[in-house]
Amino acid sequence: MLSSMNTSNQFGCIGILGGMGPAATIDFMAKIVAHTSASCDQEHVPMLVHCIPQIPDRSTAIRAGTDEPFAWLLDGLHKLEAAGADYIAIPCNTAHFWHERLSAAARVPIIHIAQATADALTAEGQSPGRVALMSTRGTVGTRMYQSRLENRVDHFIVPDEAEQVLIDTAIWSVKAGNIALGRESAQRAAARLFEQGAERVLLACTELPVVLTREMMGATAVDCTDALARACVVASVSGRVPYHPLPELEAAA
Amino acid sequence: MLSSMNTSNQFGCIGILGGMGPAATIDFMAKIVAHTSASCDQEHVPMLVHCIPQIPDRSTAIRAGTDEPFAWLLDGLHKLEAAGADYIAIPCNTAHFWHERLSAAARVPIIHIAQATADALTAEGQSPGRVALMSTRGTVGTRMYQSRLENRVDHFIVPDEAEQVLIDTAIWSVKAGNIALGRESAQRAAARLFEQGAERVLLACTELPVVLTREMMGATAVDCTDALARACVVASVSGRVPYHPLPELEAAA
Repeated sequence: MLSSMNTSNQFGCIGILGGMGPAATIDFMAKIVAHTSASCDQEHVPMLVHCIPQIPDRSTAIRAGTDEPFAWLLDGLHKLEAAGADYIAIPCNTAHFWHERLSAAARVPIIHIAQATADALTAEGQSPGRVALMSTRGTVGTRMYQSRLENRVDHFIVPDEAEQVLIDTAIWSVKAGNIALGRESAQRAAARLFEQGAERVLLACTELPVVLTREMMGATAVDCTDALARACVVASVSGRVPYHPLPELEAAA
Repeated sequence: MLSSMNTSNQFGCIGILGGMGPAATIDFMAKIVAHTSASCDQEHVPMLVHCIPQIPDRSTAIRAGTDEPFAWLLDGLHKLEAAGADYIAIPCNTAHFWHERLSAAARVPIIHIAQATADALTAEGQSPGRVALMSTRGTVGTRMYQSRLENRVDHFIVPDEAEQVLIDTAIWSVKAGNIALGRESAQRAAARLFEQGAERVLLACTELPVVLTREMMGATAVDCTDALARACVVASVSGRVPYHPLPELEAAA
C-alpha cells in the first residue's frame, strides 16, 4: 500500500462485521456518518464492511446450542483485519454471544455494543431510571445487558413471554423488509413495557432502531446501535476505545 | 473458507468501491436492499464494502490532470477481490473516469453506472424524452452519459455554467452533511433545467439522490444510483451482468 494511502495517521479504520441483517448494518453506517464532524469526504471515518447475510441466524443457533455462526464471524473478522481494519464493530447484539472468543482470535479491539451502551447510559450523570430490554431471545440469554446494567439502573425489566413474541415479530419483520409490521409490533411491545413501569426501553437488537426511530421515541428509547456508532467515531478519531472494558463482566456473562 | 460459507452458489457477492462520499455509499446499499426480494437475512445480497473517503477528490484530480485517485481505487479493488467479491460496483459517477483502466486490472466485472442507467432508461419502451445531466464537472468531461444517450434520447441537455455552479454546491453540501443547502441548490438547478425544456433530470452524481429523492421527484428524475443497484441485484441473483457492455462507447468516451 502506498504511504499516501495510509489513513491510519489521521483516522483509525472501522471494520464492520455486518449483514445481520443488512438494514441494521446500513443504519449503523448512517449513524457513524451522522456523528462525524466532516466538511468534505476526506474528513469522514474510513470503514470496511463485511455484509454477508448468509451467516446462519444467531438467535436460533444459540437456542439450539450449535456454534455454526462462529466460523462465519471468524472468517469475516479475518477478512476485515487483512483489509486493514483497526477496530471491529458488530452491529448485531446477538452475535456478541461470540464476542469473547472473537476477541481472543482478533489482532485488533472489538468494540462491545453493550459496553458502549452501558457507558453512554451511565455517563449522562443522572440515573438511567427503570430500563426495559428489547432484544432477541439470544441476547436475553447472554445476559450481556443485565450483567452491565442491573446494578447501575433503578430497575432492569426483562420482557415477559407475550412481550418477547411481539419483539420477535418486530425483528423478523424488519429483516424481511416489512417495516410497517415491524414498527407496529415494536410499538406494541414498547407500550406494554412502559405500562409495566419502564421509563426507557433499550433497543438492544440492531433491527429495532430501524423502526423505533429517535424522532418517534425521543429520550424514552436508548439506541444501542447509536451508542456503538459514537464509540466507533471516538475510536477512529482519537485512536482509543472510549470505554474501560470490564473483563469480570465478560467472564460473568 | 469453509464450503458452507461459500455464498457464491446462491448469490454473487457485490464488492462496493465506495466512500465517495460515504452518504452516497449508504444510499446505494439501501437501494440494493430495497430491490432485493428477501424474507429473511439469508436471502439478501452479500456485499463487501470499501468505504475509504480519504481518496483524493475525483473531479478535482480530473480537472487538474493528475492521476492520484487511481492508485486508491486500484487498492480498494484488489482488497475487494481478495475478500471474495464477484462483481464490483462504484457508487461514484466521477470515479468511472478510471473504469476502463480498473476493468483492465480487475479479475471480475465492474458494472458501469452509466451503462446500467442508459439501459434502464431505454428499456422502458417509450422515448426517454428530453434529458438533462446533473453531475460533477468531472463526469461532464468524461462524456460517459453523452456518449451513451445523445443518440437515444430526444435531446440531451448539459447544464450551463450557472446551473453547474448550483449542482457543484449541492454535491459539496451533501458531502459536508449540509442536507438543507444541498437540497435547495439541487432543486434550484433542476428547476432551471426544467425551464430549459428538460423533461427529466439524470441524477448522475451519487450525492444527488440523497437530496432529490424519488418521493420528491417521481418520474422527473432518473436515479443513476438506483439503476446501478438494480443491475447489481440482477448480477448477484442471476450470475450475469444485466447489460451488454458497449466497448466502442468506452473507447469513445
